[in-house]
Amino acid sequence: MLKTCCENVRKNVPLVHNITNYVTVNDVANVLLACGGSPIMSDEPEDVVDITAICSALNINIGTLHKTSIEAMLKAGKKSNELGHPVLLDPVGAGASALRTNTAVELMKELKLTVIRGNISEIKTLALGSGTTKGVDADVADKVTDETLDDSIRFVKNFAKESGSIVAVTGAIDLVSDGEKCYVIRNGRPEMGQITGTGCQLSGMMTAFVAANPDNQLEAAAAAVCMMGLAGEIGWSRMVEGDGNSTYRNRIIDAIYNMTGEILEKGAKYEVR
Amino acid sequence: MLKTCCENVRKNVPLVHNITNYVTVNDVANVLLACGGSPIMSDEPEDVVDITAICSALNINIGTLHKTSIEAMLKAGKKSNELGHPVLLDPVGAGASALRTNTAVELMKELKLTVIRGNISEIKTLALGSGTTKGVDADVADKVTDETLDDSIRFVKNFAKESGSIVAVTGAIDLVSDGEKCYVIRNGRPEMGQITGTGCQLSGMMTAFVAANPDNQLEAAAAAVCMMGLAGEIGWSRMVEGDGNSTYRNRIIDAIYNMTGEILEKGAKYEVR
Amino acid sequence: MLKTCCENVRKNVPLVHNITNYVTVNDVANVLLACGGSPIMSDEPEDVVDITAICSALNINIGTLHKTSIEAMLKAGKKSNELGHPVLLDPVGAGASALRTNTAVELMKELKLTVIRGNISEIKTLALGSGTTKGVDADVADKVTDETLDDSIRFVKNFAKESGSIVAVTGAIDLVSDGEKCYVIRNGRPEMGQITGTGCQLSGMMTAFVAANPDNQLEAAAAAVCMMGLAGEIGWSRMVEGDGNSTYRNRIIDAIYNMTGEILEKGAKYEVR
Repeated sequence: MLKTCCENVRKNVPLVHNITNYVTVNDVANVLLACGGSPIMSDEPEDVVDITAICSALNINIGTLHKTSIEAMLKAGKKSNELGHPVLLDPVGAGASALRTNTAVELMKELKLTVIRGNISEIKTLALGSGTTKGVDADVADKVTDETLDDSIRFVKNFAKESGSIVAVTGAIDLVSDGEKCYVIRNGRPEMGQITGTGCQLSGMMTAFVAANPDNQLEAAAAAVCMMGLAGEIGWSRMVEGDGNSTYRNRIIDAIYNMTGEILEKGAKYEVR
Repeated sequence: MLKTCCENVRKNVPLVHNITNYVTVNDVANVLLACGGSPIMSDEPEDVVDITAICSALNINIGTLHKTSIEAMLKAGKKSNELGHPVLLDPVGAGASALRTNTAVELMKELKLTVIRGNISEIKTLALGSGTTKGVDADVADKVTDETLDDSIRFVKNFAKESGSIVAVTGAIDLVSDGEKCYVIRNGRPEMGQITGTGCQLSGMMTAFVAANPDNQLEAAAAAVCMMGLAGEIGWSRMVEGDGNSTYRNRIIDAIYNMTGEILEKGAKYEVR
Repeated sequence: MLKTCCENVRKNVPLVHNITNYVTVNDVANVLLACGGSPIMSDEPEDVVDITAICSALNINIGTLHKTSIEAMLKAGKKSNELGHPVLLDPVGAGASALRTNTAVELMKELKLTVIRGNISEIKTLALGSGTTKGVDADVADKVTDETLDDSIRFVKNFAKESGSIVAVTGAIDLVSDGEKCYVIRNGRPEMGQITGTGCQLSGMMTAFVAANPDNQLEAAAAAVCMMGLAGEIGWSRMVEGDGNSTYRNRIIDAIYNMTGEILEKGAKYEVR
């Protein structure tokens, strides 16, 4: 199934509209090209409705918000919803400022989100801020580890169910759930956190995967997570003495570029819970 | 002649003012440095007139438009025209949204553009939108191939003549014309399309070439196209197993950095029609 | 001492708020991660106060000013001052436009700046614009060389004393002074100037160094300068035939990633005057 998800991206070449931060935008574009998609960026409110209309999906990332880009996110998101396009939200820094938290919560309320992808603390912020978490859930630990796994899975499933979105929480162990099933994924390397924007890159790629696999969006989201992590492992295996995070960034994108459905199927480490 | 065009950039070190998109801006800056020019970026309307005044040329790229950057493009463009500086327009995404099409057409009307560089569909959009195309021209094919070459050359020559700008259409075969002569260029590799922003990079470099060769702007524009394509060939020859589009990006810029007039002269593949 | 400064960054992992230009922002983020810090970017006036409050330091870079980002710089700077966080100003392009010069001077007047880092012509512009330079100082040469060294040291010391900030002037020879002592640093390579943003990267890294070494800010600023230059030397030693400025960029960031306090101590070339 992961194999097919990966191959469908290369076959369908989904055009993805990205309203994303200016820190990691170039890498997001190159990762989308590497995995077989096609990127277009636009965050001007007067431009986004036209652009979203010619795309297959929308990737919203709140990493560097501006007043005008928030307006653009809402306009593009509503148009995408109207057209039945998948919409992904990456709530970068939700919990770190009122503007980020409030914007993410507003986007959740105003838009039908196909996927929400973030780290555990961002996702917890959304769960609390949008009133979709009750009782024990709010106490979920700040890291997904083997010790906290059961609680974390329960939290992610509940949040997915209540929000009506696929929820992807990435960290040392990644969780991807639609409220019923939960993929528990163990690909990746800790050194990926020393590169800026691997999360943003994953969100861009995941949007392409979900767009190219409309009938298997949960599997597609999980496939993107496995592929990013596996690319991190393959990229790391090509590092030599003296290389550091800048070369590692290139190696990871290169590994995505060379990924096939078979390599992915073979290298993916996951269980379904 | 290409040799001299290339050498003049390294000799004159033209300072190029770029109002460009935030996706590929870092690569544009590094390519300008690699070819021997010097980049400066500014898109705030209150800043651009001063900045353009200290530069030799202006590169306008509409890849991620904002209301304020459109104002900046017009202000900087008028100041550049007043000072007799070359101005290049890269109409990224013209045809994809009303804002992009209208902005590109407005820039054509309000400014004296030295060069317009885009892909065939962007250039067709401009030709139609600005009313400079009649009859058969509008039917030019969406790809420049050996089959469509004669028609494409006629179209590019006509558009150059009517617009009063050098027109560069890049794709599998590149065409550069001033309305009289047309360079037909066959450097480059298809894999360059899997890197974000090779077109933007070329526009930045072409601006430096035109600025450094005021008496041979057509040849200079053609030289930049040959150089970008040749760098794509040289860069590709240095790729090893496991490398992908991220490493290829670095290799292309590196090849520009190491390019000499002689390498360019020897590797350029073109005819004049 | 340099050794300790370097190690404190890796130990304390300072979170640095960057209001910086969109040209080099990705490299600034990766350099901050490479040296052991952690980056966050935000330039929306409604977001910056919250973001600065959770950080340890603020890096202000005026490379691509917007009306709103100027407002953000002032708001974030005042909040940082209130909280006692170090604030660094990188006056990119001061002297090149009225907006840049005036903004830099206004930031100097409105904020308590811990460090001002720029090239000699930017720093001279600030010294003149803020009225902190008198007599002979204004005549300091436009390059710091062995011939102009004594005058340059006197100028930098005076400007540091009068402005109340640590002043770092980078070029072929780098000077870092608090008004009393002046570090004269000779690390680095001229080819670093052919990469966009090595100055911006240094400013980001220096902010992390100053934040992680509150009791030795002058030494910390000097250590960051030595480390950037040394990384340029180490990165260059790993270049092979055919490599250019794009690969060099990666090599420098990689060298920062692999730098230890001991390597820095051993490779730093400086004297204190």
